[in-house]
Amino acid sequence: MSARHDLKVAAWDANMQLQQDGLVIQTFGNVSAFDPAEGLFAIKPSGVPYAHLKPTDMVVVDLDGRVVEGSRRPSSDTKTHAVLYKGIPNIRGVAHTHSTHAVAWAQAQRSIPLLGTTHADQLPASIPVTPLLSDSAIQGDYEEETGKLILKTLDALPQPHPQMILVGGHGPFTWGSTPMQAVLNSGVLEEIARMALLTLQINPNIAPLKDSLVQKHFQRKHGSGAYYGQK
Amino acid sequence: MSARHDLKVAAWDANMQLQQDGLVIQTFGNVSAFDPAEGLFAIKPSGVPYAHLKPTDMVVVDLDGRVVEGSRRPSSDTKTHAVLYKGIPNIRGVAHTHSTHAVAWAQAQRSIPLLGTTHADQLPASIPVTPLLSDSAIQGDYEEETGKLILKTLDALPQPHPQMILVGGHGPFTWGSTPMQAVLNSGVLEEIARMALLTLQINPNIAPLKDSLVQKHFQRKHGSGAYYGQK
Amino acid sequence: MSARHDLKVAAWDANMQLQQDGLVIQTFGNVSAFDPAEGLFAIKPSGVPYAHLKPTDMVVVDLDGRVVEGSRRPSSDTKTHAVLYKGIPNIRGVAHTHSTHAVAWAQAQRSIPLLGTTHADQLPASIPVTPLLSDSAIQGDYEEETGKLILKTLDALPQPHPQMILVGGHGPFTWGSTPMQAVLNSGVLEEIARMALLTLQINPNIAPLKDSLVQKHFQRKHGSGAYYGQK
Amino acid sequence: MSARHDLKVAAWDANMQLQQDGLVIQTFGNVSAFDPAEGLFAIKPSGVPYAHLKPTDMVVVDLDGRVVEGSRRPSSDTKTHAVLYKGIPNIRGVAHTHSTHAVAWAQAQRSIPLLGTTHADQLPASIPVTPLLSDSAIQGDYEEETGKLILKTLDALPQPHPQMILVGGHGPFTWGSTPMQAVLNSGVLEEIARMALLTLQINPNIAPLKDSLVQKHFQRKHGSGAYYGQK
Repeated sequence: MSARHDLKVAAWDANMQLQQDGLVIQTFGNVSAFDPAEGLFAIKPSGVPYAHLKPTDMVVVDLDGRVVEGSRRPSSDTKTHAVLYKGIPNIRGVAHTHSTHAVAWAQAQRSIPLLGTTHADQLPASIPVTPLLSDSAIQGDYEEETGKLILKTLDALPQPHPQMILVGGHGPFTWGSTPMQAVLNSGVLEEIARMALLTLQINPNIAPLKDSLVQKHFQRKHGSGAYYGQK
Repeated sequence: MSARHDLKVAAWDANMQLQQDGLVIQTFGNVSAFDPAEGLFAIKPSGVPYAHLKPTDMVVVDLDGRVVEGSRRPSSDTKTHAVLYKGIPNIRGVAHTHSTHAVAWAQAQRSIPLLGTTHADQLPASIPVTPLLSDSAIQGDYEEETGKLILKTLDALPQPHPQMILVGGHGPFTWGSTPMQAVLNSGVLEEIARMALLTLQINPNIAPLKDSLVQKHFQRKHGSGAYYGQK
Repeated sequence: MSARHDLKVAAWDANMQLQQDGLVIQTFGNVSAFDPAEGLFAIKPSGVPYAHLKPTDMVVVDLDGRVVEGSRRPSSDTKTHAVLYKGIPNIRGVAHTHSTHAVAWAQAQRSIPLLGTTHADQLPASIPVTPLLSDSAIQGDYEEETGKLILKTLDALPQPHPQMILVGGHGPFTWGSTPMQAVLNSGVLEEIARMALLTLQINPNIAPLKDSLVQKHFQRKHGSGAYYGQK
Repeated sequence: MSARHDLKVAAWDANMQLQQDGLVIQTFGNVSAFDPAEGLFAIKPSGVPYAHLKPTDMVVVDLDGRVVEGSRRPSSDTKTHAVLYKGIPNIRGVAHTHSTHAVAWAQAQRSIPLLGTTHADQLPASIPVTPLLSDSAIQGDYEEETGKLILKTLDALPQPHPQMILVGGHGPFTWGSTPMQAVLNSGVLEEIARMALLTLQINPNIAPLKDSLVQKHFQRKHGSGAYYGQK
């Protein structure tokens, strides 16, 4: 009971941050908070403006997307979150935004090339974009199929796997060790997406950043000898 | 009397939201609130800065654009609003902005192609742009002719009709079931316009989004089996 | 004495608005307020951050740019303001900003083409850009020569004259019937400059707006039968 | 003891300004404050969000980057700051941001051409970009090597030397006579970077600003007969 309350507060807090960081307008986007012990997650209700959200509005659902607690209808993207919690190890938060530049890359159906250290600090590879869903997947269980497509795209990538992806024609999903980390990843993705577009406008022929520099930045933040951040 | 006061408050509230959402600067733009029972609408006075607006400044006019109540001159675009209320069924709000990216598409005299699900969530088609008004229409009753041109452009489109349009060389008009919905549509239109331009900068050859994905997103929000939002 | 105090308050108020409207950063830009009865104007002190400005910091100078009142050094652009007050009839305010998009057009040494009604509402012609100053003018009384170049550029234009101009390689100057009107013109210019660039990115081949539409918008706001704004 | 407290307050204050000016998101970027009498500088702790920073969180380090005071791990870029304090005469502040447009030029590996007076007010030359570090430098003492590369790039430039540079593939470093001046230089650099990109989008063939105009603007602000700012 108290754990569920905490889960709803964590989800609410992360959703509010999404709006404060300028990553969503109106009712766009959603964040969820996962409790692996219970196998439940709390998620934003569908189509409710951020200004009106209260922690008690969060909807608690199980990993099949069934509502366990809450009087509101959960986000229409709930099943995508469920698939990600089932398929990606050790994550406790998922965020989905319609942030402008990340959506532009998703709509352009282009992965974001690795052009600088801001990007390399997050991931030593391009930000992947999924192909468009097949017509049968779209006409089937669409949101579940979206999650499966994300997992399939991740599976084909080398390690380390990104905590962010663009769904082709749609927009970004991000995740992390906490709901707030998922939101932070959404913010970094938007900034990387914006920087990459501007970089290519300045120099359309720029090559991806050389690997020695990529590895240095990724490893100093995420490697075994990392020295970025506090111990 | 009280209904008219409510109408003025609704119009004022929606006008203030227009500014808070960053869709207008200075005295640009206007929103109106329509009461079909009385056949009257309340609209922003012409050329008054948003910071100074009070609900009592709103001007109540009839569907011929004649002032029924209020000491100020109504928006110069009043007759365009009147034509839209007469010609589009079941709407109670109209908004006109000079939001930057929507105006840019209007000035470019290009409809906004459907490139992603943010757009498909609103409309399963391009955002239309009207042709330029003829010289005789411009020299006639210009604002009424603008409204008629919008209706004529809508009539030529398949159903479902959009709640937003670009007037060529000028800027966007939007409408909806409430004045606030008209304002929200203006905000979504600006975001779609911005995303579309960025998408084409990333990939000038991107094709419009495939129809199965367009229909899925439009129907899950607006179709008979819609499951986006609260019941 | 009191008139001078009012003049300093008017200049201060307009300078603060410049910053609030996002048209300047740090110590960039300056606005002055002119009193034709006294032949004096109050102007921002040079190089002082907006956050620290007080009305009493404003410097009162005569039309030769000599300090009449105030303990601070006036804006380095003071003589440009003086030349504009002497050369343009009936203006009481001048503003100079480094607003991003207006500066970009000035740096590109391109006049801003008239592409839509937002522009036509202000001026029925392109926003002019001056040529670069000659080397001898630069090495002479630079700021006075800048003012003279603006006047010379205006003189070559048909009536009605704009209340805004781009100084080639430098940035915008605007003016108006009050200091605040000069600031509002700076804001409109920045928005027109931004819309024009975006319009050309969407459609590089767009022609200038047809004259019948230009004249309609300019005349309904500024002509003898104007009906925009309050009487 | 009190001098060290003042140093930490100066560093904290400048770091907070970095965020208020919109030059960083999340934990990106860092500013330090140098005390040449002690040979020590105070710097932001690594990876701590700006909203949580207190003056006492600042870490005091010597010019070899060894922590002298403070319980937190200093910025991962600390050794770069140390090299700049040792190599550039008379500076007391260094700032490093990931501001969007400056990073885009750094990622594009292009120096920023001098296209207008906003730029000339700072520097009578292009904003330089360093080449990429060699693989051996990256695999060696990376942050120290970054500082050395900045110094080497500066050494090859004519006087006057800039107070700002782009590290190729990474982003901007700026410095100045105070920590706050370093932050102001970061803000000006971001604005110059944005204006230059927009200018080239409007006119891809624009030539650098002619030297007479460049020298006039630089000298009126920084020359022996400067008259910009207060005495």
